[in-house]
Amino acid sequence: MQGWPSGPGEGSAAGAVPGGPGWRRRPRPVPSRPVGGGRQRGGGGGGGAAAGATADAAELPLAMGGGCRARAPPAAGLRLLLAHAVLLCAAGSAAGTGSVNPCCYFPCQNQGVCVRVGLRGYECDCTRTGYYGVNCTSPELWTRLHNLLKPSPAFYHFILTHFKWFWDIINSTFIRDTLMRLVLTVRANLIPSPPTFNSDYGYISWEAYANVSYYTRVLPPVPANCPTPMGTKGKLQLPDPQLLAERFLLRQKFEADPRGTNMMFAFFAQHFTHQFFKTSGKMGRGFTKALGHGVDLGHLYGDNLQRQHQLRLFRDGKLKFQVVDGEVYPPMVTEAPVHMVYPSRVPQEQQLAMGQEVFGLLPGLCVYATLWLREHNRVCDLLKRDHPTWSDEQLFQTARLILIGETIKIVIEDYVQHLSGYYLSLKFDPELLFGSQFQYRNRIAVEFNQLYHWHGLMPDSFIIQGQEYSYKQFLYNTSMLMDYGVEALVESFSKQVAGRIGGGQTINANVLHVAVGVIQESRQLRLQPFNEYRKRFGMKPYKSFQELTGEEEKAAELEELYGDIDALEFYPGLLLEKPQPNGIFGESMVEIGAPFSLKGLFGNPICSPEYWKPSTFGGATGFEIVKTASLEKLVCLNVKKCPYVAFQVPAAAEHGSPRAAGSSTEL
Amino acid sequence: MQGWPSGPGEGSAAGAVPGGPGWRRRPRPVPSRPVGGGRQRGGGGGGGAAAGATADAAELPLAMGGGCRARAPPAAGLRLLLAHAVLLCAAGSAAGTGSVNPCCYFPCQNQGVCVRVGLRGYECDCTRTGYYGVNCTSPELWTRLHNLLKPSPAFYHFILTHFKWFWDIINSTFIRDTLMRLVLTVRANLIPSPPTFNSDYGYISWEAYANVSYYTRVLPPVPANCPTPMGTKGKLQLPDPQLLAERFLLRQKFEADPRGTNMMFAFFAQHFTHQFFKTSGKMGRGFTKALGHGVDLGHLYGDNLQRQHQLRLFRDGKLKFQVVDGEVYPPMVTEAPVHMVYPSRVPQEQQLAMGQEVFGLLPGLCVYATLWLREHNRVCDLLKRDHPTWSDEQLFQTARLILIGETIKIVIEDYVQHLSGYYLSLKFDPELLFGSQFQYRNRIAVEFNQLYHWHGLMPDSFIIQGQEYSYKQFLYNTSMLMDYGVEALVESFSKQVAGRIGGGQTINANVLHVAVGVIQESRQLRLQPFNEYRKRFGMKPYKSFQELTGEEEKAAELEELYGDIDALEFYPGLLLEKPQPNGIFGESMVEIGAPFSLKGLFGNPICSPEYWKPSTFGGATGFEIVKTASLEKLVCLNVKKCPYVAFQVPAAAEHGSPRAAGSSTEL
Repeated sequence: MQGWPSGPGEGSAAGAVPGGPGWRRRPRPVPSRPVGGGRQRGGGGGGGAAAGATADAAELPLAMGGGCRARAPPAAGLRLLLAHAVLLCAAGSAAGTGSVNPCCYFPCQNQGVCVRVGLRGYECDCTRTGYYGVNCTSPELWTRLHNLLKPSPAFYHFILTHFKWFWDIINSTFIRDTLMRLVLTVRANLIPSPPTFNSDYGYISWEAYANVSYYTRVLPPVPANCPTPMGTKGKLQLPDPQLLAERFLLRQKFEADPRGTNMMFAFFAQHFTHQFFKTSGKMGRGFTKALGHGVDLGHLYGDNLQRQHQLRLFRDGKLKFQVVDGEVYPPMVTEAPVHMVYPSRVPQEQQLAMGQEVFGLLPGLCVYATLWLREHNRVCDLLKRDHPTWSDEQLFQTARLILIGETIKIVIEDYVQHLSGYYLSLKFDPELLFGSQFQYRNRIAVEFNQLYHWHGLMPDSFIIQGQEYSYKQFLYNTSMLMDYGVEALVESFSKQVAGRIGGGQTINANVLHVAVGVIQESRQLRLQPFNEYRKRFGMKPYKSFQELTGEEEKAAELEELYGDIDALEFYPGLLLEKPQPNGIFGESMVEIGAPFSLKGLFGNPICSPEYWKPSTFGGATGFEIVKTASLEKLVCLNVKKCPYVAFQVPAAAEHGSPRAAGSSTEL
Repeated sequence: MQGWPSGPGEGSAAGAVPGGPGWRRRPRPVPSRPVGGGRQRGGGGGGGAAAGATADAAELPLAMGGGCRARAPPAAGLRLLLAHAVLLCAAGSAAGTGSVNPCCYFPCQNQGVCVRVGLRGYECDCTRTGYYGVNCTSPELWTRLHNLLKPSPAFYHFILTHFKWFWDIINSTFIRDTLMRLVLTVRANLIPSPPTFNSDYGYISWEAYANVSYYTRVLPPVPANCPTPMGTKGKLQLPDPQLLAERFLLRQKFEADPRGTNMMFAFFAQHFTHQFFKTSGKMGRGFTKALGHGVDLGHLYGDNLQRQHQLRLFRDGKLKFQVVDGEVYPPMVTEAPVHMVYPSRVPQEQQLAMGQEVFGLLPGLCVYATLWLREHNRVCDLLKRDHPTWSDEQLFQTARLILIGETIKIVIEDYVQHLSGYYLSLKFDPELLFGSQFQYRNRIAVEFNQLYHWHGLMPDSFIIQGQEYSYKQFLYNTSMLMDYGVEALVESFSKQVAGRIGGGQTINANVLHVAVGVIQESRQLRLQPFNEYRKRFGMKPYKSFQELTGEEEKAAELEELYGDIDALEFYPGLLLEKPQPNGIFGESMVEIGAPFSLKGLFGNPICSPEYWKPSTFGGATGFEIVKTASLEKLVCLNVKKCPYVAFQVPAAAEHGSPRAAGSSTEL
């Protein structure tokens, strides 16, 4: 399916493979996959001679093991092949062993699992992949049909983002539900659940399953001691991350997101994701401090019980707060003594105490922290009205579940709706999945963390009520929240357009170091090449840098730096891919990001049949709050005068998607 | 379904209830359920006058709240009603509030969720129960049909334990798979998943979901400050636990289990369950130290990483061991320094180091610890043969998954098979569930822990090769394991019959204190009455103590002590219920225990489509080990001379169930 040719001994249509689907007992000595002539892939290279050549090439590293002797390559791809031999020899020596791990070639296709067998062999476990053969490349009949009928991501993206009149009809029929269910199941099925690998375990293990301090990962790490950092492709050394960032990621000129995404969206993204992206510096890059692995609102309630208790009022279920000028704000750390990250110049009396320790960084994060705090206490009041006998604990816990539900509702129907650009009206309705096989669990993946670094959104400066603030003035600005108040900040954030994320050269210099860090992290974690992720998420691997970027100049430079499109790294691949037409980023960000996102949202326990009922939320009132939540209500029910609020600037909102902003009659 | 009559204002067939299925918005002031005349229940008490009486009775506690004034009861049940009024008054004063929590009446039937509303009201959330009405007592059409067609537990138990010739045929057809799938889904669906309540949270909450230090529980605790310890039924004070145990549980005369269960089974049960039953004394009775909540083999590998590392050899994936007289045994704590529980008289050099700290207690536990240790190292050798390049870590982790798989296989096809007495040949095949909605997760419940105290199995003394050992001689006997060796002990355990568990008066005096502790714990945890659990697991509540015990004398005494069958406690109910014909215990133990058991076994991640494939177990060899594991192989592949080994004594094995012991040709 993925445009992968059959290797020797594994005829596809020719059917040269003995045995049927499933697991093959006899280990193969080497991956039956082209090593040298990478460009043959998409082409017709199925001829006997060429196949023989690649087979020999594939055997090369193993044959060389003893002392770096190479058999003479009989056919094409000579130059590349020799270069390869040198690399392998070097790598082999470095590892001090006689043979290259065949899994360095990523031989198993279509989600087959590579297992090293014997001294030099490997096996691909094709169980339930829908493919068979040594490398899981021969589709079963049903798979073949499915592949024939399956539209490309580009095709359905086109359909979903065009023909508004058509979708306006669909959205008012049951077909909306059917399509939403389809979107959910197709996307979520791409995420292994229960989770499988992590950064220390490239194979299924009890430790990787049970130890939730790890982020999980969808693809195992590049095996240790491979010939090159990216397996067997590319150069011996990856490009300097600082150089990569400056040349390809650094913003030259601000480009507004064509879809009108605003700063209200940007801060929401940052605020929302920091409940589950909490990489632990202490334990190493593959670990997280956010053990809830999803929407648990740890960024509001703290990521541990001790912090939660410091933030709670222990009266009527509420969180501690302070009132300034008649408005409710989070308390200061002097009142709620929790660890917060602030520069030393900020005294304790100016440090807001919030669930997430880094939220003092930006007034935008403080605004959301304030809104959710107010919402929590507002919901507590409503619950207490219905349930005067309830304890503080029950009020608190039930309000928390309601706010989790509100968050998921807003993320799907406001946030993802905007991000997708779909005219299909997305729907948060857990009952859509009650008839499907679906695991109500989630484990945050390191790949999801990597891809969610959307610093291109950040503008060159911040405009609050016409006043411009530089990064220096905006970061750790502790007075802005109360000086302007929530309404003014929401309105200003909603009216300032954010930057485009994809397409390269989109990151402001002030935050470029973050991108450098992401690339460095991906190397420590030995993330597989971008193209391997493309395949894993149902896309064709790119054949060239030109195909990736859609232009020539940067493509040529990238080729020079990486040597091989199959050696391109994950995060640079995502950011340098040509954006979708009128889109904020490229196809891969959507196709890889959406599955993680939807699985995380619908995999929340509150979406399970066991939890999704009125009593979980204290009764009909709470259930209704969840079912009707919106960004607008989050803001307007918690301020005195409702400002303009949306995830897109006013101009874009006017001809926007189904849930575009506008004053709702519900309020 | 549960034999519950409709209360006033909620006609059943009469259809007096406004509104349809689902959640009802308007709170009811009081539970529409008889409070006084409990004996009306099964009978015809649906007449207008009687219903009116019970309605008044139900309102009584609320009306009394202010100062213990009671309206004159207009009709039947006067004596009981007055007694009740006294109780309620006392309880009301104790609580210092003006009204009784209506959920103390357990008004919501058929798994409806009781939520307290307003000062005196409650609502039942009937969502997806298949029932509607104030108390979720009116069946929807489909439920009505289902209830009509559903056979009683006693009926299908009879079928499954008779007609061997019929089952011999069934077992060799695809119907075996169909029935096994049915058993699994019907049983497992009774267990909420994701888990819901725990001992601190009688309502759904994020804390109960996320904090795995808690055992979960299927029914929430009896609300605090109810009129009586068991809600509203029974006496103000529960019977003295020591008295209960001595009068009803203490063994008078050893009664062999009629099914021929042996000590090999008893020790297996104890060894196996102590991986997930590890109540934390420090944190309180509702907590566990076994955070894996299922078959994670923490009793072999330790329940934390530090302990695991002390037990590992860090060579070829193996566990530390010692060789004595040419046989492999667990190491001493001097070699593997882990905390073990031994009396002070046992010096460190005699303390075996095992995964579970309490396994020094009994030679039977040491035998299993030794067998699994040998099995682990044996599997490591096999894995290493296939995968010479694998690290110690990968060999260890993969062996662990294989042993988890072996354990589940043995538990289902040997252990549960024996216990069930079914002629249907049970099957461990995770693929049976791949088409069903099934959550691959498990949380150990406090009720499962309570019910699994099967000390009736324990004999009056232990017979090893004809030699009799008293409890004093057997407990913490550190020399027996190596003096006799594994073969001799296995053979002796397999030939000594165990005691019956159910039916009362089955517990040896040496372990009676454990039963006392279980009863005390259930009170600290405020476990709901036995009859509420009967209903929760699809059985009719008992109408009388006579019906429970099947006799008169003990029943009368119990009635005297408890005052009301609806106030009978969980554990005494399980142990005092009349055993099934020729069975080891009563219907409730099976109907409540089996769902927990099967959910725990099939809910293991290795049974998920994501994990259940050869590569997870290192390839075809490991997968085959899992798929063909048996008790007999566990023993006979790890000793020099294969002894008699089974879960039943030889006489019973001769005309036993499908997987009865006997020398297998596979070995």
